[in-house]
Amino acid sequence: MKNQKEEIKIKTSIEGLDKMLLGGLLPGRNILLSGPCGTGKSTIAMQFACGALKFNEKSLYVTLEEKKEKIIEDMKKLDLDIDRAIEEKNLIILGGPIASLNEFMEKVDAKVSHLIKEIEEVIKENKINRVVIDSINLFTMLLQTEEEKRLALAALCNSLSNLNCTTILTSETKENSMDLSRYGLEEFVVDGVIVLYLVRQGSRFAPGIVIRKMRGTNHDKEIKYYQITDKGVVVFPEETLFTNI
Amino acid sequence: MKNQKEEIKIKTSIEGLDKMLLGGLLPGRNILLSGPCGTGKSTIAMQFACGALKFNEKSLYVTLEEKKEKIIEDMKKLDLDIDRAIEEKNLIILGGPIASLNEFMEKVDAKVSHLIKEIEEVIKENKINRVVIDSINLFTMLLQTEEEKRLALAALCNSLSNLNCTTILTSETKENSMDLSRYGLEEFVVDGVIVLYLVRQGSRFAPGIVIRKMRGTNHDKEIKYYQITDKGVVVFPEETLFTNI
Amino acid sequence: MKNQKEEIKIKTSIEGLDKMLLGGLLPGRNILLSGPCGTGKSTIAMQFACGALKFNEKSLYVTLEEKKEKIIEDMKKLDLDIDRAIEEKNLIILGGPIASLNEFMEKVDAKVSHLIKEIEEVIKENKINRVVIDSINLFTMLLQTEEEKRLALAALCNSLSNLNCTTILTSETKENSMDLSRYGLEEFVVDGVIVLYLVRQGSRFAPGIVIRKMRGTNHDKEIKYYQITDKGVVVFPEETLFTNI
Amino acid sequence: MKNQKEEIKIKTSIEGLDKMLLGGLLPGRNILLSGPCGTGKSTIAMQFACGALKFNEKSLYVTLEEKKEKIIEDMKKLDLDIDRAIEEKNLIILGGPIASLNEFMEKVDAKVSHLIKEIEEVIKENKINRVVIDSINLFTMLLQTEEEKRLALAALCNSLSNLNCTTILTSETKENSMDLSRYGLEEFVVDGVIVLYLVRQGSRFAPGIVIRKMRGTNHDKEIKYYQITDKGVVVFPEETLFTNI
Amino acid sequence: MKNQKEEIKIKTSIEGLDKMLLGGLLPGRNILLSGPCGTGKSTIAMQFACGALKFNEKSLYVTLEEKKEKIIEDMKKLDLDIDRAIEEKNLIILGGPIASLNEFMEKVDAKVSHLIKEIEEVIKENKINRVVIDSINLFTMLLQTEEEKRLALAALCNSLSNLNCTTILTSETKENSMDLSRYGLEEFVVDGVIVLYLVRQGSRFAPGIVIRKMRGTNHDKEIKYYQITDKGVVVFPEETLFTNI
Amino acid sequence: MKNQKEEIKIKTSIEGLDKMLLGGLLPGRNILLSGPCGTGKSTIAMQFACGALKFNEKSLYVTLEEKKEKIIEDMKKLDLDIDRAIEEKNLIILGGPIASLNEFMEKVDAKVSHLIKEIEEVIKENKINRVVIDSINLFTMLLQTEEEKRLALAALCNSLSNLNCTTILTSETKENSMDLSRYGLEEFVVDGVIVLYLVRQGSRFAPGIVIRKMRGTNHDKEIKYYQITDKGVVVFPEETLFTNI
Repeated sequence: MKNQKEEIKIKTSIEGLDKMLLGGLLPGRNILLSGPCGTGKSTIAMQFACGALKFNEKSLYVTLEEKKEKIIEDMKKLDLDIDRAIEEKNLIILGGPIASLNEFMEKVDAKVSHLIKEIEEVIKENKINRVVIDSINLFTMLLQTEEEKRLALAALCNSLSNLNCTTILTSETKENSMDLSRYGLEEFVVDGVIVLYLVRQGSRFAPGIVIRKMRGTNHDKEIKYYQITDKGVVVFPEETLFTNI
Repeated sequence: MKNQKEEIKIKTSIEGLDKMLLGGLLPGRNILLSGPCGTGKSTIAMQFACGALKFNEKSLYVTLEEKKEKIIEDMKKLDLDIDRAIEEKNLIILGGPIASLNEFMEKVDAKVSHLIKEIEEVIKENKINRVVIDSINLFTMLLQTEEEKRLALAALCNSLSNLNCTTILTSETKENSMDLSRYGLEEFVVDGVIVLYLVRQGSRFAPGIVIRKMRGTNHDKEIKYYQITDKGVVVFPEETLFTNI
Repeated sequence: MKNQKEEIKIKTSIEGLDKMLLGGLLPGRNILLSGPCGTGKSTIAMQFACGALKFNEKSLYVTLEEKKEKIIEDMKKLDLDIDRAIEEKNLIILGGPIASLNEFMEKVDAKVSHLIKEIEEVIKENKINRVVIDSINLFTMLLQTEEEKRLALAALCNSLSNLNCTTILTSETKENSMDLSRYGLEEFVVDGVIVLYLVRQGSRFAPGIVIRKMRGTNHDKEIKYYQITDKGVVVFPEETLFTNI
Repeated sequence: MKNQKEEIKIKTSIEGLDKMLLGGLLPGRNILLSGPCGTGKSTIAMQFACGALKFNEKSLYVTLEEKKEKIIEDMKKLDLDIDRAIEEKNLIILGGPIASLNEFMEKVDAKVSHLIKEIEEVIKENKINRVVIDSINLFTMLLQTEEEKRLALAALCNSLSNLNCTTILTSETKENSMDLSRYGLEEFVVDGVIVLYLVRQGSRFAPGIVIRKMRGTNHDKEIKYYQITDKGVVVFPEETLFTNI
Repeated sequence: MKNQKEEIKIKTSIEGLDKMLLGGLLPGRNILLSGPCGTGKSTIAMQFACGALKFNEKSLYVTLEEKKEKIIEDMKKLDLDIDRAIEEKNLIILGGPIASLNEFMEKVDAKVSHLIKEIEEVIKENKINRVVIDSINLFTMLLQTEEEKRLALAALCNSLSNLNCTTILTSETKENSMDLSRYGLEEFVVDGVIVLYLVRQGSRFAPGIVIRKMRGTNHDKEIKYYQITDKGVVVFPEETLFTNI
Repeated sequence: MKNQKEEIKIKTSIEGLDKMLLGGLLPGRNILLSGPCGTGKSTIAMQFACGALKFNEKSLYVTLEEKKEKIIEDMKKLDLDIDRAIEEKNLIILGGPIASLNEFMEKVDAKVSHLIKEIEEVIKENKINRVVIDSINLFTMLLQTEEEKRLALAALCNSLSNLNCTTILTSETKENSMDLSRYGLEEFVVDGVIVLYLVRQGSRFAPGIVIRKMRGTNHDKEIKYYQITDKGVVVFPEETLFTNI
């Protein structure tokens, strides 16, 4: 079964990105998808989650801040029968915005442990093999010190990996920073890192995507051009993005 | 009713900006309008609020620091019958400067919760569908930690979104920083981000406007030139701003 | 009376600067005058305060650190009958250096409130319409947090505005910073911002002045050259300053 | 015996790197291997550890965050009989991910001392002469102050040196920083420093390796090009990497 | 007597610098002399202090860290009869290195007040009119907050000014910083600022001096070249220093 | 005896460096030798310490972190009869790595005072006139505040100066920083500063040495090229190093 696992790759369902990944992601690995505001992180994460439906896989989409209804509304634009997928529990959306500020802040530690357990239970019960955590910033922000952030994130990633889930964790980076993550530690915990840039070229901002790290498999190493369209993100693996920055 | 909501767009009433937005803003969304000192954030926010009157909509303008009289005085220059609009409660102005420093600092948490509730009540009672919060900086500044700021802002945005209000939240950014917001977290909570720049060109400062993020709709992606005139901001969607910075 | 207020402008009495301001400052507004060490902030502020005497207006000059005698000595170089103006209470100088370090630090909050009250009383009693606070840095420095600084400054500005005073508040910025103020928040509280630069050109430092923000009125938008002479600052509105920085 | 020690060098088993090192590493020395995310630090460390098997040496691989199974899986791609090596205790893998966040944080000091003792015992019992600590970041992160980090790291290095082990300690540096280590102090404690760069050249990232410090022996001083392949890292000592950064 | 004070200038005794100052310093003013390591701040300060002897003036040299013997030894190289000046109390050297670390740290506040009083007494008793404080960094460093530093420094400057002393206060700035002082606040408290630069030109460091601020008098505004010789600093007011930094 | 002291210079025994110093160092002075990782600070310090043997002088080498054996091993490569020098107490090595982390951290203040006393006793007993402290970073790191660091360092330097020792104190600076020391205060306490650079030129790092400050004597002011060889550092006073940084 292990060999089988090695050969099969999990398709992100974004054609150009799967080409850059030489077929897709390795099963059971955690991938950080980072970029500044407006680069389409959530859109790519949704395409990955909904992509499961095309391959008879099951996916879980976890959000801490967005309303469930908004996520569904946005997913519907990707042209799939989302309502049926949710009804048949092939696509599960977890989370939604926090009800009360005070309540939430009270027991952060308990909440973080609880959240990990809740995710694990949903995965086991529904035989999920794709997970999206969009985004991990609030999650890491809640923990005070650098080592707490790192250890909690490692615990989450190990747990998902043990459950054989291929996971995309989105991370919002600061404007104009070229950082790989918000706290500069997330990239060292995960198995792979895909970075989205928004490069100013004269009077416009050109989006670029690059695979910066991907343990256990080879991959494209150049920054490629992509577009955010009404039907999702389209990656152009033939168009490299030249930048002077 | 949902489909209807999808098709209708909320006009900012700034012609050039509405062109950049391919018609206007999506209803029920929160838009961050950020820029450094002297870029006309308040002017654009006032044009958006007063623009409601042209389309038989109702708007609420919330300010924490300015005097109500000053806001009205400035709005009158935009050439509309503001007095009648206020009398007929089509335009409501809330807030004004803090009376006493000590009093205010005493119970910040209570104040923040109270402020959100007060806004909600005014919206429900008067059937408001456009809101301006000018600016969110004092609001976020009052909260101590990064996660408190983010969670409180998310609570405010979700509340306004649930009430079906289209909201502009202004944010003052640091001089020469190219940041999208004061604390680098506001842009991730909202549905859209419009940024104002003030680019030094030799001995003068040229203003530029760009739409950096707008969930659920396509939009212009270039930095356009605009002017701050006595009658409000005028955007030139045909004039891109070339910068070397 | 309001219309009258709109039409009249308060002359700074620096001819070139008044031209840049299209006549002068709007009455009742607070203007931040900022710049690094050696740009002549105090000189401009003195010219503004003493300028009152030419137009039968009355002015108050508040200083927290300088000796009253030194201020008078420096004002006399501007070629006006300062002694008579002080005697007739057309020019009032308040403050002077702190007597004892320990005493001062004891009750900062009380001091700040007290200072605002004292200023208000002097203004009412003497029918002052021009005020200089030179500088606000010690004032803001005494308050601990960002929000205290901002709220206290807003309280001071609103108070002066309510008393119909046109006010210049000087702020010392850091060397080579291009900041608009010391703490990056003062510029958002005031109605207008005038910035002084000291641009190194080869082996010398060229002074430049620019109006970066001026609510409610149009103004020159370029950086102009000026000189610090023995008789005060002279602005050259026809000479733009080209910089590469 | 000392002279013998001087003449023998420990081969990293990466041919190009051994050439840059004029034969290999000096026995009993600690080498810092640092670089940003995606530069193949772990791969080089594994090649060094597994390289022991070719020379009848014994190695210990310590990891605090990765699962033992994952390490083994990755080592197998380097084309050696890892299973037998582990069975015969020529290759020992220590550590693996932390079970519980709370438990771990409880007694950090005890843990750090304990970890050093555990490593020492394994080394003595199995006559280990090569050690990898991948990575030292979590180790140093757990200690609060700069001096605690430095003293603990010095204690670890001295201990390994006394046991005659040649050690590679990996350190993750921040993106785009050109730093030699995470905290800017690790490089001063060790005997040698090898740095991995990832230099952006237009639309791609070119990897470069340089020996920045190596006490007691001469070495190549240029940045050389290398590749991360499926069979491990390949260094090209004839190809210098020209950068403008 | 005041007019007389206006006309007389205090010569620094460095010919080129006095030319840049259009004759010298104004009496009773405090001048900050700042620059990075190795720019000759102490040498200039010594030339100023010893210069008093040529004009029948009396000077006080205060040092917190250097040994009195070392100061005298260095002054003797400036070619004056220092021993006689000290014996006749025309030149007084105060301070010297701190005996015990612990003792000193115990009562910092008391020490600072005490030091100011001691300086005042020496000045009054010996009719001193020139003072050097070399350097104020330890003095300001001992105070915790920004406002304490500023207020204490203002107290010291006002005290010296009231005693009619012309004072040079040296301040050590950070390498490559172009700052005017260590804490970015000293320059706003004093009446004048003279800055020393050390500009790297290819493989050497060229020293440059500029007068950045001088209240109440005009002055040279360019960066001039100077040399540190065995007989003290020599300023070349005809040689401007061109820099690209 | 003083005149004699003035004329004699202490040779570093590095020929090129002694040329740059116009003969050597002044007796009784403290010299900071700083530079980033891999610039050969320890090597130069060892050459200075061992150089004593050529001139019938006696030297003390203090290290807090390295093992005594390692220091001796490295010194032997410099081609002198180190064993005999140690036996005859012409060369004394003090310190070595800290045994226990916890023990050391317990009474830092006591340790620092104790260390200074121990150094003084060794110097007096053995008539040492050359001292190396390699490095002072751990020493300064142990003290909490900026003023404690500065005062302790001043105490150490004064003590060594009083004992007539010529001292080299090494300081590790941050990578790519061009700083003169770790904390930006060490350079102001000492009598002289020698800086080592490692300038990246395309694909290699070129070492450069410059004398940035040397009280009481003239010196070369350019950055010179040097090499780190198996027999120690060789300085080329005829080869200036051109850099664009």
